Amino acid sequence: MSQTTKNRQVLLIKRPEGLPTPGDFKFKDTEVQQPQEGQVVVKTLYLSVDPYMRGRMNDSKSYIPPYQLNEVIKGGAVGEIVESKSDKYKEGDKVIGMLGWQLFNTVDDSKVTKIDESIAPVSAYLSVLGLTGLTAYFGLLDIGQPKEGETVVVSGAAGSVGMFVGQIAKIKGARVVGIAGTDEKCDYLMKELNFDEAINYKTTDNIKQDLEKACPDGVDVYFDNVGGSISDAVMSLLNDHARIPLCGAISSYNSTDGDMGPRIHGQMIKTRSLLKGFVLSDYADRQSEGLQELGKWLSEGKLKYEETVVDGFDNVVEAFLQLFKGANLGKMLVKVSE
Amino acid sequence: MSQTTKNRQVLLIKRPEGLPTPGDFKFKDTEVQQPQEGQVVVKTLYLSVDPYMRGRMNDSKSYIPPYQLNEVIKGGAVGEIVESKSDKYKEGDKVIGMLGWQLFNTVDDSKVTKIDESIAPVSAYLSVLGLTGLTAYFGLLDIGQPKEGETVVVSGAAGSVGMFVGQIAKIKGARVVGIAGTDEKCDYLMKELNFDEAINYKTTDNIKQDLEKACPDGVDVYFDNVGGSISDAVMSLLNDHARIPLCGAISSYNSTDGDMGPRIHGQMIKTRSLLKGFVLSDYADRQSEGLQELGKWLSEGKLKYEETVVDGFDNVVEAFLQLFKGANLGKMLVKVSE
Repeated sequence: MSQTTKNRQVLLIKRPEGLPTPGDFKFKDTEVQQPQEGQVVVKTLYLSVDPYMRGRMNDSKSYIPPYQLNEVIKGGAVGEIVESKSDKYKEGDKVIGMLGWQLFNTVDDSKVTKIDESIAPVSAYLSVLGLTGLTAYFGLLDIGQPKEGETVVVSGAAGSVGMFVGQIAKIKGARVVGIAGTDEKCDYLMKELNFDEAINYKTTDNIKQDLEKACPDGVDVYFDNVGGSISDAVMSLLNDHARIPLCGAISSYNSTDGDMGPRIHGQMIKTRSLLKGFVLSDYADRQSEGLQELGKWLSEGKLKYEETVVDGFDNVVEAFLQLFKGANLGKMLVKVSE
Repeated sequence: MSQTTKNRQVLLIKRPEGLPTPGDFKFKDTEVQQPQEGQVVVKTLYLSVDPYMRGRMNDSKSYIPPYQLNEVIKGGAVGEIVESKSDKYKEGDKVIGMLGWQLFNTVDDSKVTKIDESIAPVSAYLSVLGLTGLTAYFGLLDIGQPKEGETVVVSGAAGSVGMFVGQIAKIKGARVVGIAGTDEKCDYLMKELNFDEAINYKTTDNIKQDLEKACPDGVDVYFDNVGGSISDAVMSLLNDHARIPLCGAISSYNSTDGDMGPRIHGQMIKTRSLLKGFVLSDYADRQSEGLQELGKWLSEGKLKYEETVVDGFDNVVEAFLQLFKGANLGKMLVKVSE
C-alpha cells in the first residue's frame, strides 16, 4: 500500500427521474481507508456497470435495497489486493466482489472471493464466469427449459446476458432468434455466435412481421431482457405452453409514465413471481380427482355454490351480454325447460 | 319425442366489435333433427353462458376454434333425453355436454355424459361439479398453491369461478380477499362464504389503498379472472415468489384498443404460457453447478464472450448511462487499472 493513499469515489447525489444524467452523480476525491485486522485493500481493476443498477437508484422496495444518497455506488468489481491484514489473502491476489465505484475498496476479507487467472482473464469473472453467465444459465435452463428443435427468442441479445442465453440455447439444440439494436450487433450474433436469425428492432418497419418470418414455428421460449413493445410483439407469437424467463425490462427502467408495454414485468422480476395462463383442459386426466374433492367439500358443507338463473331460452343472448356487466352472482345459467 | 318437433336456435350472424349486441345474434325457428342410429335427442334444461364464449366469437386462433358465422352457438348445457337410438341412454336420463344454444340437440351418444341427480341438482353440473368448479380447483391448487396463512386475492370473486377459488383457499387455510363489483356481492362473499375481506372495485376511490389495507402482509396468490387496472393494483402488492393463475381477462374481452392494463394476459391464457420473474440469487445454492457448466462450454469453445470495455475510472458514470443507449456488445465493463 506504498503506492498511493489517494482514493476517488462516485456518489449518488440525486435520485434520477427518468434517464439518469451525469448531474445525479458526483466524483469525490478522498483518502484510502486504512485496513483493520481481517480487512484487505482492493485496488479496482474492472468495474461492472449493469442495467439493474438503475433500479437501485430509485427509493423503492426490491430484491436488493436501494442505494443511499451521498454514498458510494456499489456493483460487481474485480481487483487486486494491495494490502492485506487477513490470513486469507496476500498482496497480488485477484479477487471479485460487490465493491464500491472507487479506486480502492477497504473491506472485510469475507466480502471478496479469490479468482483464478489461469482459467480466464480477470474480467471474465464479471461476465461469462460471473453474474451474467450464471443468470443466462439458470434463467434459460431452469425456467425456459428449451428442448431440441424448439425456437428460443432472446431480446437484448447482444447484451451481457443475452449473448450467453442464445449460445446456451444453441448448445441445447434450439433454433435461436436474437433481437438487438444495431446491424453490427445482429451481424455479430449471426456470424460469431451462430444465431439462426437476428432482428434489428431499431431499423425494422414491422418487428412482428420480421419475427413471424424468423420464427415460422412460433416461439417456445422467450428470454426477456427488455419488456415494452418488443415483448408485446414476441408474445403475440407464443406457442402453447411457452416459457418466458423474465430477466430484465430495460425499456422501462427509465420510464416515468408507467406504460411501456407489459407493465407487470418490473413487479414480476422484483418479486420473482410466477404467472401462468391455463385452461381447464390442461387437467383433463385429473378430472376425477377434482370432482371427488369438490363433491366431498360440497357434502361436508365446506363449499357453497350460487347460480344466477335467467328464465327462458329466448333470454340466452341477453344473459350472455349481462355477464359483461357483472350481473351474475356465481354461475350464470339459462333455464330452458323444467 | 311425441311432444314436439319444433326447435329454436341461436345463431351467431356477426362477429361482435367490442361489446356484443343483440344484433350479432339471430333466433331461428326450425325442426328438431331426427336421430340416426347411435344418436339421442336432448331437450335442453339449462344453458351455461360464460365469458370465455366472447373469445370464440372472434375469428382468431385460441385453445378452442372460433364459432362459425350462421351456425348455432355451442356451450355447456344439461338436458334430458327425450328420444334415444342409443343403447347407452333411455328417455328421461339427464345428461351434460357441449351442446348448441337450442331447445333440442340431436347428437351422437358420445357427445353427452350422464349425470346423477341424487348428488346435486342438474344445474350444479354446470357450476360447482362442472367446468367452473374444476377450473377453480386446478388453477388455484396446481398453480396458485396457497399455503396456510398466506394471502390469496381473487378478482371476479363473486363470479362462477371466483367464488370457488375463495372457498377452496379458505379450506386450505389462507386469508382470502375478494374483489367484486357490487356491495351485495361483497356482502355475500364475506357473510355467506366467509371471505376475510371484499372490495367493491366500482365504488372505491383508491383500489390500491383498499387492497393494502385488506392485505397487510402482501399478496401471495392472485387468482386473476379480470386483467386490466384491477390486476395492475393487485400486482403492485405481490410478495416474493407470488403465484398468479391467469384464468381470465374479462376486462379486456371486449376491448378494441388493446390497452387495458396487462396486455399480455389474453395471449398467456390462450397459450397457457408460463412467465416467471427471477433473480440470480434464487439459485445461490446451485452456483457451482452453473460455473462448472459454463467453464466447460468455454473451454470446449462452445461459448464465446464479449466485453465492451470503457477505459478509466472517471468514465464510469458515462459507461453506465451508455447502457440505456445500447452502446454495449456483451458485458459493459470499466477498466480502472492494469
